[in-house]
Amino acid sequence: MATGSARILLVHCPDRPGLVHEITGVVFRAGFNITSNAEFVDSATGRFFMRTVFEGSGDPRELSRRLAERLPVAAQIRLVARRPRVLAILASKEYHCVGDLLLRHDFGELNARIAAVISNHATLQGLVERFGVPFVYVPHDGLTREQHEERILEVLRPLRPDYLVLARYMRILSPEFVERYRHRIVNIHHSFLPAFAGAHPYRKAFERGVKIIGATAHFVTAQLDEGPIVAQNVLPVDHTYTVRDLVRVGRDVERTVLAAALQLVLDDRVFIWNNRTIIL
Amino acid sequence: MATGSARILLVHCPDRPGLVHEITGVVFRAGFNITSNAEFVDSATGRFFMRTVFEGSGDPRELSRRLAERLPVAAQIRLVARRPRVLAILASKEYHCVGDLLLRHDFGELNARIAAVISNHATLQGLVERFGVPFVYVPHDGLTREQHEERILEVLRPLRPDYLVLARYMRILSPEFVERYRHRIVNIHHSFLPAFAGAHPYRKAFERGVKIIGATAHFVTAQLDEGPIVAQNVLPVDHTYTVRDLVRVGRDVERTVLAAALQLVLDDRVFIWNNRTIIL
Amino acid sequence: MATGSARILLVHCPDRPGLVHEITGVVFRAGFNITSNAEFVDSATGRFFMRTVFEGSGDPRELSRRLAERLPVAAQIRLVARRPRVLAILASKEYHCVGDLLLRHDFGELNARIAAVISNHATLQGLVERFGVPFVYVPHDGLTREQHEERILEVLRPLRPDYLVLARYMRILSPEFVERYRHRIVNIHHSFLPAFAGAHPYRKAFERGVKIIGATAHFVTAQLDEGPIVAQNVLPVDHTYTVRDLVRVGRDVERTVLAAALQLVLDDRVFIWNNRTIIL
Amino acid sequence: MATGSARILLVHCPDRPGLVHEITGVVFRAGFNITSNAEFVDSATGRFFMRTVFEGSGDPRELSRRLAERLPVAAQIRLVARRPRVLAILASKEYHCVGDLLLRHDFGELNARIAAVISNHATLQGLVERFGVPFVYVPHDGLTREQHEERILEVLRPLRPDYLVLARYMRILSPEFVERYRHRIVNIHHSFLPAFAGAHPYRKAFERGVKIIGATAHFVTAQLDEGPIVAQNVLPVDHTYTVRDLVRVGRDVERTVLAAALQLVLDDRVFIWNNRTIIL
Repeated sequence: MATGSARILLVHCPDRPGLVHEITGVVFRAGFNITSNAEFVDSATGRFFMRTVFEGSGDPRELSRRLAERLPVAAQIRLVARRPRVLAILASKEYHCVGDLLLRHDFGELNARIAAVISNHATLQGLVERFGVPFVYVPHDGLTREQHEERILEVLRPLRPDYLVLARYMRILSPEFVERYRHRIVNIHHSFLPAFAGAHPYRKAFERGVKIIGATAHFVTAQLDEGPIVAQNVLPVDHTYTVRDLVRVGRDVERTVLAAALQLVLDDRVFIWNNRTIIL
Repeated sequence: MATGSARILLVHCPDRPGLVHEITGVVFRAGFNITSNAEFVDSATGRFFMRTVFEGSGDPRELSRRLAERLPVAAQIRLVARRPRVLAILASKEYHCVGDLLLRHDFGELNARIAAVISNHATLQGLVERFGVPFVYVPHDGLTREQHEERILEVLRPLRPDYLVLARYMRILSPEFVERYRHRIVNIHHSFLPAFAGAHPYRKAFERGVKIIGATAHFVTAQLDEGPIVAQNVLPVDHTYTVRDLVRVGRDVERTVLAAALQLVLDDRVFIWNNRTIIL
Repeated sequence: MATGSARILLVHCPDRPGLVHEITGVVFRAGFNITSNAEFVDSATGRFFMRTVFEGSGDPRELSRRLAERLPVAAQIRLVARRPRVLAILASKEYHCVGDLLLRHDFGELNARIAAVISNHATLQGLVERFGVPFVYVPHDGLTREQHEERILEVLRPLRPDYLVLARYMRILSPEFVERYRHRIVNIHHSFLPAFAGAHPYRKAFERGVKIIGATAHFVTAQLDEGPIVAQNVLPVDHTYTVRDLVRVGRDVERTVLAAALQLVLDDRVFIWNNRTIIL
Repeated sequence: MATGSARILLVHCPDRPGLVHEITGVVFRAGFNITSNAEFVDSATGRFFMRTVFEGSGDPRELSRRLAERLPVAAQIRLVARRPRVLAILASKEYHCVGDLLLRHDFGELNARIAAVISNHATLQGLVERFGVPFVYVPHDGLTREQHEERILEVLRPLRPDYLVLARYMRILSPEFVERYRHRIVNIHHSFLPAFAGAHPYRKAFERGVKIIGATAHFVTAQLDEGPIVAQNVLPVDHTYTVRDLVRVGRDVERTVLAAALQLVLDDRVFIWNNRTIIL
């Protein structure tokens, strides 16, 4: 295991006095130097969250061991190297989110490697391959949801993705599929959730006559559109916007929100607790 | 009837070719000069909306008559003098929206006269009377909703308000009450509708873990929180905000949105159609 | 000349009573049907602006002739077919604005045809050609500004672009060059103008410690960064953002603002008057 | 000195490894329990900032002594009780910021006591006194700036304000006056600084044709409008807004931004460094 590279420690446990002092002490004594530190206590539930970036020539396994000894048994301790993660993108026909991620990827701005774009439609093949990224067409015609998901899982397995990104993927994933990538699937929903959950949010937004539309990036859970929210943004609209106009301007919000959420996730800044995100 | 003062013509009717040309012609020939004009055609439903501000020494009644002759039978034609409207405010315990309106009123910025603040609690009496505005305490204890509303109506009748403003009034109005002031009651809801309709929106927003909260000013209809939206605005929040924090920062959005909506309503710029607003 | 297709009439002239009535009348009598109409009077300077979309089988030349007869001599009358415009993009090394426009272009969302991307650096060649758009490398090394611009003009001439888009083109254009494409060059400036005009706006923003950064799309005039503004947008930042972070998040605002401005320009919705834009 | 009440420790010093661990250790050993903690390292300049909220029965003086021993000589250590601060407001004729602060103050929402509103105009006397807050009229007619400021200082001295708030106070303060309340004067400027510094920002914004206006709350320094920015916010506008409209809608941004900045300042969350604010 390489020494000297930056690492990130993520601790989530019941709160008790002195945790910051204690944890920073363990890190120091293990031979590391903390370069940045952030913590949050959720007073209502008595939970402690801490994200510490450190570097140095200590032994990370030794650090993990010592932390486990000192922290409460229920503590969740993650110690990860700061490195680009591997993404697999699931898409359907809409180009804007996929195109946006491919552009950022191509210019080294996405802190990740896109292993593949998998789609139930062939629409985006040209776009994806143009960027030298593998495109895998997994049509769903004539397949049950389980069969279709099984084929997708076969594609995913060898890629060993850290995260799946649903970039306007228009099929609902089964709870079983979601469970396999628990807290590792990020979806962009084309509304300001919880408003207009489900299908056709822009049509619903039009009919309700809202003056602002939005987009929501969230982790996927078994409950459709109800997973922990990572990022949201909005855009003013007015009575002159048709549904088609809402769809069009909504694209800009969707891709910007998705990219912002991914940046947080890929930087290991997001904790999940009580179906909410704590972002340190 | 005074001549020479500014007037506003509001036309809403089925669309047909040449309406702008036709209506502006009638106004000119009636001896008026148009100073501003705006129109909108809702293509999906084939409806035409037009707001025209004009001045001059013609006879408004004559203008109304000629318009009625020329326009489709189904046309809704409103011809109003540009003058401050009369408002009655209904409130409960929250001070921020009422206080904001009193301040604007006091400095001549609200294009209206506040005839009274009516409340089911005595909390705001000091604040309201300090501004020289009548405060009418109408407690609801021991009364049925109908009895309570009847007492409020008794207060309202002699005031002859153009609009009622629900400035965080925490009681639900009966459909009968709403019908009496059809399309003339403006409510501020403390969420970004349709998200978190109903009670305790900030608590629900906290539990859902949203990253943006909002407020919505809308006309009141028989369906709670489902009337036509006039204005909305939002504010970013994060995991450090407690419910109490959301309530606190939400106040600034609520009163700003309410004031913005009232300005539009009081300027006769808002049409209602298909439970949506067209704002010209 | 094809009949029946949609056309746009743009009128800008000194205001006088009855213009809307008069102009709509001329259009009708020429055999056209108005589908949308918007006007604005700048009271301070007494100027009238009108944008009318119409269709029908009349003769556009005859319409132009009649309008010229009826309107003031000083009137600027433009009558254009509603069709995609031709763009030439000037770029340097930054990929995000060019990439964004290429993506929209590729999926038929940009109401224009990109005739070429011209750059003083070869950096973006791969990206541009991947989308099947001609890339023309015009290095500036060893050339005076005039010589470099002359070479660019040679590239531009046969393309006959309606508009030039400076998509983070990092060279200053001479007044002579600008004059050749007067009111037809749209630039994206990476700050909320007039704040941080000139070079290195993100560094200046960092040093000033602003809590919001922005981007500005504007027409280019002889005065650097002082041309009429078409669109602006902003993004909140805080003390944790380095200059590099500002550059990174700024990219999202820049390309969104540029695309929004182009949409308005390409729809013939933008008038320029007194170094300001009127957008109808 | 009361024990058990909440206190805030603010440390600003050159960075070195282990500071968080060290400081939290000193606090614990002094008998206090940390309830919240935030830190920031400005890598470019090697500065460390930390804000720690703690409570307990220890002796604060003892804690201060120990911290001073352990931290670098150059460290700035502030240890303050968490309590409402005392404000003095300077105003001129505009009512909206003063009115907003009076409302919040009256309903216990402003974490401070307003000791007085001092103005060079009598305009706001009625408003201020209506809220039971002393109004001190200090006209400037016939006085030099020094004489006028001397009279204001005479009013201020017995009030012993923690902070002065310039709530649209339209006179420029001398460097000497500013120095007496160094880093303790908060001003609201009616533009998105550094755009439109100086007088008449809304007129300048109109002339420049911006599509967004804003307001900036900042600490006052000897350089007019150049002090460290605490908070900013913006609002979209368009070509239909006259200067008067900009002034009107700008008021809502101004007072919201001022209140937001004061909340941060009054919570002892703002550090000043290199003319920038670090907000923990």
